[in-house]
Amino acid sequence: MPILNKDMTLCISLAGRPSNIGTRFHNFLYDELGLNFIYKAFTTDDIDGAICGVRALGIRGCSVSMPFKEAVIPLVDEMEESASAIESVNTIVNDSGRLVASNTDYEAVAALIDRHALPTSASVAIRGSGGMAKAVVAAFRGAGFDNVTVIARNPDTGAALADRYGYRFASEDTGSGAAILVNVTPLGMRGSDEDTLSFASAQIDAADVVFDVVAFPAETPLIRAGRAAGKRVITGAEVIALQAARQFERYTGVEITADQVRQASEFSRAAT
Amino acid sequence: MPILNKDMTLCISLAGRPSNIGTRFHNFLYDELGLNFIYKAFTTDDIDGAICGVRALGIRGCSVSMPFKEAVIPLVDEMEESASAIESVNTIVNDSGRLVASNTDYEAVAALIDRHALPTSASVAIRGSGGMAKAVVAAFRGAGFDNVTVIARNPDTGAALADRYGYRFASEDTGSGAAILVNVTPLGMRGSDEDTLSFASAQIDAADVVFDVVAFPAETPLIRAGRAAGKRVITGAEVIALQAARQFERYTGVEITADQVRQASEFSRAAT
Repeated sequence: MPILNKDMTLCISLAGRPSNIGTRFHNFLYDELGLNFIYKAFTTDDIDGAICGVRALGIRGCSVSMPFKEAVIPLVDEMEESASAIESVNTIVNDSGRLVASNTDYEAVAALIDRHALPTSASVAIRGSGGMAKAVVAAFRGAGFDNVTVIARNPDTGAALADRYGYRFASEDTGSGAAILVNVTPLGMRGSDEDTLSFASAQIDAADVVFDVVAFPAETPLIRAGRAAGKRVITGAEVIALQAARQFERYTGVEITADQVRQASEFSRAAT
Repeated sequence: MPILNKDMTLCISLAGRPSNIGTRFHNFLYDELGLNFIYKAFTTDDIDGAICGVRALGIRGCSVSMPFKEAVIPLVDEMEESASAIESVNTIVNDSGRLVASNTDYEAVAALIDRHALPTSASVAIRGSGGMAKAVVAAFRGAGFDNVTVIARNPDTGAALADRYGYRFASEDTGSGAAILVNVTPLGMRGSDEDTLSFASAQIDAADVVFDVVAFPAETPLIRAGRAAGKRVITGAEVIALQAARQFERYTGVEITADQVRQASEFSRAAT
């Protein structure tokens, strides 16, 4: 690390329960690229005051996580399409006092659909109806997929999400036969649900691609089962690294290579 | 430097024209002592918003410089005696959301009066009537000095300051014969007045002690003349290091040795 100095540009994150990922990811790349920036995660019980501080202190970038992704909408000056389309912000860039909001989760999922060349004619089953599910469903709609089923335990949020994008809604026990399975629930996440497979084995066997948004661990039961069955897999580690890379580029104006994203991602995950 | 992490405690400064001194001083000691803190200087055009951000982001400490030393008074929750006595704040500690203000310039001058064993019976001439002069005059009053003359070009602020502490006011051309000469004007400071001696040579010859609050350079014309005449000298570098050390101890709860203050001070000044 360079010696800290007064001219460093500060970027922060705001989350109910901050992780160390963003702080390690961004600072690793600042160091690697010799940028005079620092990044640090914060929590707050006053989101209005925190955004007020972003303005008054000239904080350049602010990553936004749960539970603040909707609460910051009235506090910014401009919403980019990626955020306004799903009414959810995960990135704020302070351009000389003007706060511009975007959603790099949406962008990352859209980029991964493209990178993995997922065919738009394929049938897709997306499980989940929370904030991140909105970004995922919108990204599939944006990519041109028509044959999508949203599966959710909560019929209100699930049906509303499906309706909004002209997709089908299905309850817990259906969804078999889709070519692309996407998990956007906490099933498989480190903690209480870490052993739970988010789709049935028969569904996995029938699919071509399994896509898990859960990032910790990257190797969820769904991803492990997909690999074992020889399917193409897309992990939550890819999503989180790519969305952080997009934030990095917005905050610094510096584009980074896929190799730099990979290195920073590995570094950021090493301490978790 | 350690790898930056989410749990680092942030301390900042707010100044109209930030220097690099505080950032280098505090971060040097954090590193030296293995404290999980970072410090960075900021400026702002919205002091209310900046203090709002200090609260909302849980920023632990905030050093306050010109022109914000009086503006922050209505924004804090508690004024310690060192700040309320002179209606000037240079330090805010955030104790779990409660902002407590103090003035470590006052404390540093008081400590230097004590450390250099200045006799309270001595006659003192203090030149200046700005914000820092208030801290210096109050510190001499607090130490028990009765025979003090405030010398200032501005008769309004000069007379008001002298009156407030029961001292004499004198215009530009008097003040000879004092045993202790104290400069609290920008005379001798790097820049336009750097070659100006803040007291006449005859006054220096007649004095026992010369005390210059100007910190850059530490070797002002007054200090050089005092040394050449064999007088005891007290420099602005001592003031700035000591006040920063008091801030450091308030922010971190860790007491530092005189040697650590000296090392951090040398490091902080090395890049200016």
